[in-house]
Amino acid sequence: MANNNRWYANTGQDGDVVLSTRIRLARNLAEYPFPHRLDVAGKEKIGKEVYAAVKDVPALKLKFIEMKNVSKTGAVALAERHLISPEFASNSEGRSLLLSDDESVSIMICEEDHIRLQIIMGGLSLNEAYEKASLIDDVLDERLKYAFNENFGYLTQCPTNLGTGMRASVMLHLPALSKLSRIQKIANAVSKLGLTVRGAYGEGTSPGGDIYQLSNQVSLGISEQEALDNLRSITLQLATQERSARKELLKNISVQDKVSRAYGILLTSRILSSKELMELLSWVRLGASEGLVPVKTELINEMFVTMQPANLLESIDSDADAAKRDEIRAERVRKALEAGRIGERI
Amino acid sequence: MANNNRWYANTGQDGDVVLSTRIRLARNLAEYPFPHRLDVAGKEKIGKEVYAAVKDVPALKLKFIEMKNVSKTGAVALAERHLISPEFASNSEGRSLLLSDDESVSIMICEEDHIRLQIIMGGLSLNEAYEKASLIDDVLDERLKYAFNENFGYLTQCPTNLGTGMRASVMLHLPALSKLSRIQKIANAVSKLGLTVRGAYGEGTSPGGDIYQLSNQVSLGISEQEALDNLRSITLQLATQERSARKELLKNISVQDKVSRAYGILLTSRILSSKELMELLSWVRLGASEGLVPVKTELINEMFVTMQPANLLESIDSDADAAKRDEIRAERVRKALEAGRIGERI
Repeated sequence: MANNNRWYANTGQDGDVVLSTRIRLARNLAEYPFPHRLDVAGKEKIGKEVYAAVKDVPALKLKFIEMKNVSKTGAVALAERHLISPEFASNSEGRSLLLSDDESVSIMICEEDHIRLQIIMGGLSLNEAYEKASLIDDVLDERLKYAFNENFGYLTQCPTNLGTGMRASVMLHLPALSKLSRIQKIANAVSKLGLTVRGAYGEGTSPGGDIYQLSNQVSLGISEQEALDNLRSITLQLATQERSARKELLKNISVQDKVSRAYGILLTSRILSSKELMELLSWVRLGASEGLVPVKTELINEMFVTMQPANLLESIDSDADAAKRDEIRAERVRKALEAGRIGERI
Repeated sequence: MANNNRWYANTGQDGDVVLSTRIRLARNLAEYPFPHRLDVAGKEKIGKEVYAAVKDVPALKLKFIEMKNVSKTGAVALAERHLISPEFASNSEGRSLLLSDDESVSIMICEEDHIRLQIIMGGLSLNEAYEKASLIDDVLDERLKYAFNENFGYLTQCPTNLGTGMRASVMLHLPALSKLSRIQKIANAVSKLGLTVRGAYGEGTSPGGDIYQLSNQVSLGISEQEALDNLRSITLQLATQERSARKELLKNISVQDKVSRAYGILLTSRILSSKELMELLSWVRLGASEGLVPVKTELINEMFVTMQPANLLESIDSDADAAKRDEIRAERVRKALEAGRIGERI
């Protein structure tokens, strides 16, 4: 199965810095208690209801996936691809997922809220992603009865999501700002503007590969468009800072050495852990942005996603242990770089 | 100036393990005190006398080099190539050197003894090297008056060289035995057989690049041929042990990883110290012997010699500082591996 229809196989707007854009809408159905107060049957009922609401929309073509039928590896792989939350992956009871073929649309059913609709797109595409989310949201709104309050907006289980129920985020590759130890200062500054900088997998996760998530924190008392404009503006400022830091950093011969060696190691290693790969890819992506190493950004983005432990394991179809996986990862990376692209899955 | 007529540009017999063979004969002239009791003029007089004895032998074509005319860098470079001793390089007063164009023949005049005649050849070639040394020794013996005693043989300043005055040695690349920590045991065993294992630059030097010198210790009460046969026999045993250790070691995927990455780093680094280069070359040479990396042994041997600090500096013809040298070294190594050979000096 080739992956070239997936969002990560293409770079988008400002793709040198912005890996992807996500819009997530939290919605609940008025006639049911919040998921944590539902039993398995109750959750399953909601899954079927939501699926029934979208399955006849030809443009969507969403697959209905009952999480109880997804293997542990499969669930973690979905979380690695940011299609479900780690929490959703860890407990399948009664939960289901609606997923489009290109994985740009995913709807978690009975995570914290009844509906968590997510759009993910390559590069910086907040408005496009929001428009797509709104279209699906409108379909659901028309066919289901949302919990909505004139004063608070969309009602959600956690009060931090009240209001628009929207979280918009961008995944940023900030190797230069990170290696120059400027992230903490930036995180402090953006928090005053209602935004949060975190590791790629949310609160408390480490920024493997120098990948950071920038997202809006406030959903109450602010319109969706204001939130998107705010996030877009800060993202563009960070991108400008990152680009200038890259140029500054890459003048340094020892940074050039790091970048070039990282490329050399990726081309030749026989054992490669996921953690080391992320670090090496980050150096290579930094260098590639200034033409120092002959690797396409799309390929690096794809490896960031597909070479993660569960995704790799899922694509092997075997019970490879960690050591064997590190060998297979090394081999895949070598071949991918040699071919200039991720090959067919083997 | 290309180096392809030098001994290190070709591998010889058992060249997978044996880098080179050296025969050194210590000789003194009967009518002069030992060098440490000579003044500058006395040393210079001996230099001219020895040169006069060989300069009309067409087959030899030795250059006469007064060490006072050799730069500090040039002298260290000669020592790095094992053509003179580090001690000879550090004090030039009155000393001179006779050197053949291919550097296989070198005669230090007024080092510890009046004459230190050395033959160096690639691979294991003890008999060939000894024959060549003997031919030159015969010429010198015919035209000069050697200090010789019926009981003690050739008289030398240090009693450890009395007798044949011959030291025979082989330079061995023992990466597998070294990485398996078997060298100390081997050193203990061979010392009982009258041989010594040391680092590449003699007593007390560290075995950079896993290169070891194996030499005969005894020169009194043993014929030259016995000493050569003994050394040859132990060398062949060590070579057998090393080959089997290589096969054993290279089955290990983490060793394959080390070898392959070392090659990758050599292909891509932008900064390379002499020390790191030796370590990386050792891994690569280990792998190359089993066809794991596509590098010719000759090329690695050549880099072991020509990429050392003073040799590199000498070939640059500039006042490059250490940092700049590490950059130039990285560039040369990259280009050499890409071209599959050391290019013309730039």
